Amino acid sequence: MENRERLDRMRRAMEAERLDALAVRLPENVLLLSGFWPMIGASVLVFPREGRPVCAIPHCYESEASLSLWEAEPAYYRYGVLDAPEPSSAIRDILSRAARGKGWKRVGYEADFEVVAPPWNSGEAQVPAASTREIYRAAFGGAELTDVSFFLQAQRRRKTDYEIAKIRTASEISCIGLEAFERLAGVGVSGVELAAGVEREIMVRGTGYRRAFRVRAYAQVAVGPDESAIGYRPNEVSTLRRLERGDVALLELGVVADGYWADRTRVLVAGEPTDEQWNVFDTVRRAQQAAVAAIRPGVSGAEVDEAARSIVHDAGYADFFPHITGHGLGFAYHESLPKLAPGQTDPLEQGMVTSVEPGVYFKPCGGFRIEDDVLVTANGSETFGPFRNSLT
Amino acid sequence: MENRERLDRMRRAMEAERLDALAVRLPENVLLLSGFWPMIGASVLVFPREGRPVCAIPHCYESEASLSLWEAEPAYYRYGVLDAPEPSSAIRDILSRAARGKGWKRVGYEADFEVVAPPWNSGEAQVPAASTREIYRAAFGGAELTDVSFFLQAQRRRKTDYEIAKIRTASEISCIGLEAFERLAGVGVSGVELAAGVEREIMVRGTGYRRAFRVRAYAQVAVGPDESAIGYRPNEVSTLRRLERGDVALLELGVVADGYWADRTRVLVAGEPTDEQWNVFDTVRRAQQAAVAAIRPGVSGAEVDEAARSIVHDAGYADFFPHITGHGLGFAYHESLPKLAPGQTDPLEQGMVTSVEPGVYFKPCGGFRIEDDVLVTANGSETFGPFRNSLT
Repeated sequence: MENRERLDRMRRAMEAERLDALAVRLPENVLLLSGFWPMIGASVLVFPREGRPVCAIPHCYESEASLSLWEAEPAYYRYGVLDAPEPSSAIRDILSRAARGKGWKRVGYEADFEVVAPPWNSGEAQVPAASTREIYRAAFGGAELTDVSFFLQAQRRRKTDYEIAKIRTASEISCIGLEAFERLAGVGVSGVELAAGVEREIMVRGTGYRRAFRVRAYAQVAVGPDESAIGYRPNEVSTLRRLERGDVALLELGVVADGYWADRTRVLVAGEPTDEQWNVFDTVRRAQQAAVAAIRPGVSGAEVDEAARSIVHDAGYADFFPHITGHGLGFAYHESLPKLAPGQTDPLEQGMVTSVEPGVYFKPCGGFRIEDDVLVTANGSETFGPFRNSLT
Repeated sequence: MENRERLDRMRRAMEAERLDALAVRLPENVLLLSGFWPMIGASVLVFPREGRPVCAIPHCYESEASLSLWEAEPAYYRYGVLDAPEPSSAIRDILSRAARGKGWKRVGYEADFEVVAPPWNSGEAQVPAASTREIYRAAFGGAELTDVSFFLQAQRRRKTDYEIAKIRTASEISCIGLEAFERLAGVGVSGVELAAGVEREIMVRGTGYRRAFRVRAYAQVAVGPDESAIGYRPNEVSTLRRLERGDVALLELGVVADGYWADRTRVLVAGEPTDEQWNVFDTVRRAQQAAVAAIRPGVSGAEVDEAARSIVHDAGYADFFPHITGHGLGFAYHESLPKLAPGQTDPLEQGMVTSVEPGVYFKPCGGFRIEDDVLVTANGSETFGPFRNSLT
């Protein structure tokens, strides 16, 4: 059991919150506390403060689950076949058995996660809705049900060594995509072609890297000034627009490896960049370097943001950097803690992982953003999966 | 406004249910009633029985929304930038304005959709959770809030001509992937390589097909008897296992084009199939043909299922066809209505779209399934995106 630290920490936090057990269904939280990343969202984990966790799992994923579960006891139920029970009734029975005789007074559940990472089968998400709450009510009898959504997000903010290694792997795999982006981008190539090529390369060459066995990428490439400097939007939209000489291509890339995420951005110019494109790029690169250099435990999110923002300001582009400098990630593409942004006074802590992604979106030149994922270490920071920033 | 039929039908159904308005947030239901398929889940549509709908949309997706909205009035709110309000407060204000002075007594909302299709950015899903209900309570004042999840699923079961054309397009695009699967499969190729290659081809060649502008595929390829005949599971898991001579490759493929879905399956054998592999394949093919031939309005899901199942039974493989024969689809990869399965007595109706996907999973040979998407027409059926079934 390589991630004992997570379970110990979680149980201490549960004690402080007087939580006797947790019931989690989001794939990202099943992974957090069991080691198993569900293929679909039909697995529910009961994680008691004392005693062995139990995980309800569709029988057809037994081979994957048995390879990855830590200490949770798997409870397989028939799924997707004619003789299977209703999943909700099968899950309710498993949870009821797990709770029987335990006398739990307070059980935490996910009531309010509106933004969630997909399971491995990202074409179809299953999320806890009203019927899941009914299952919990039936299975946990008279226990008080309490929303632990924020509690879980707060617990997830500091990663354990095991989790850090997994996230580092995802970032290293993302470099396969950054390299493919450099190789494929050129005059005449469309945003759709670039996005599809980057995703394919990551899936083919990333699967098997450091034993990662379920790897998927989500790439979007904006092409030219209109698409890339539309102001700013969290997700670009890849189109059939083809790179012309002097056009910017902006790659926004999410990568998941066995449930752990990386979030990267690179920008390239087809042909010879103008002096102003070089100037904007250099500003963004220096802003990112300054932010990374400012990261260490005890520094606030606002201070790191200001390190980047002041450089953009001094270069005269303050009005064109409209977004935050970074956000937490790891169990999802975006996590809410930490946040590198004005007004964020909470100190960074060792074990946090944050994106660092200043950007300048200046219509005449195009949109420029550089994004890497950075770990807060004891004395400073480590940038995961280092990869060059070049504009050409 | 090409899909007037949907809005008229929905308003008549709302009248029958005494619903004054609907508030929907799932991307698939925003698409259903507005024509706009959200990039992320941060759009909420208010659809009144009388009067113009209003859709809250992040400002950065104005260009995509303005191209696709039918009659809904867009209400853009600043999103993802430093000066943006909290999304929940922005959405609440827009909804409150839409409801003001209307005197709505009963408003329907999505309380219980546990299985949902992703938005275009499938690496991150946003779903209606507790905070969305709070928004509705605040925005709709004293109106009764009622769960319309099943109501919406039931309305979605019969597609309009506009929707049929969109789903047909998705199925035609899926053929690009079936063709790539045939071309790429061969001794020495891995399941991951096949899945990644199929997805890339669909994205590159499918974008732009019949003006589809947001196309994505989700492919899984099981290789060899262990992976493909594990019993049956709704989603295969692609691995690094490489095709050996005589191995089956089973492709499970979901394709989305501008929010409308196709669901296809094909099977191939590398090298020369054995006599028994040919026999199993032929059984599955005949079972599928019989099911398709049985489809017409008024026939029950059980009768169609039996048309396929009896052929598998007569061939001696009844124990190895453990799942249903088909399911609805269109606004999602899988929809709950109709269902082609034993015991399903409800009659098929014109305008339903269903998968037809018998399968035999027989360890010595491997898993064999063939899946196409079929429309129930006035007198029979139409198979979307016809594509050959060949084993080699």
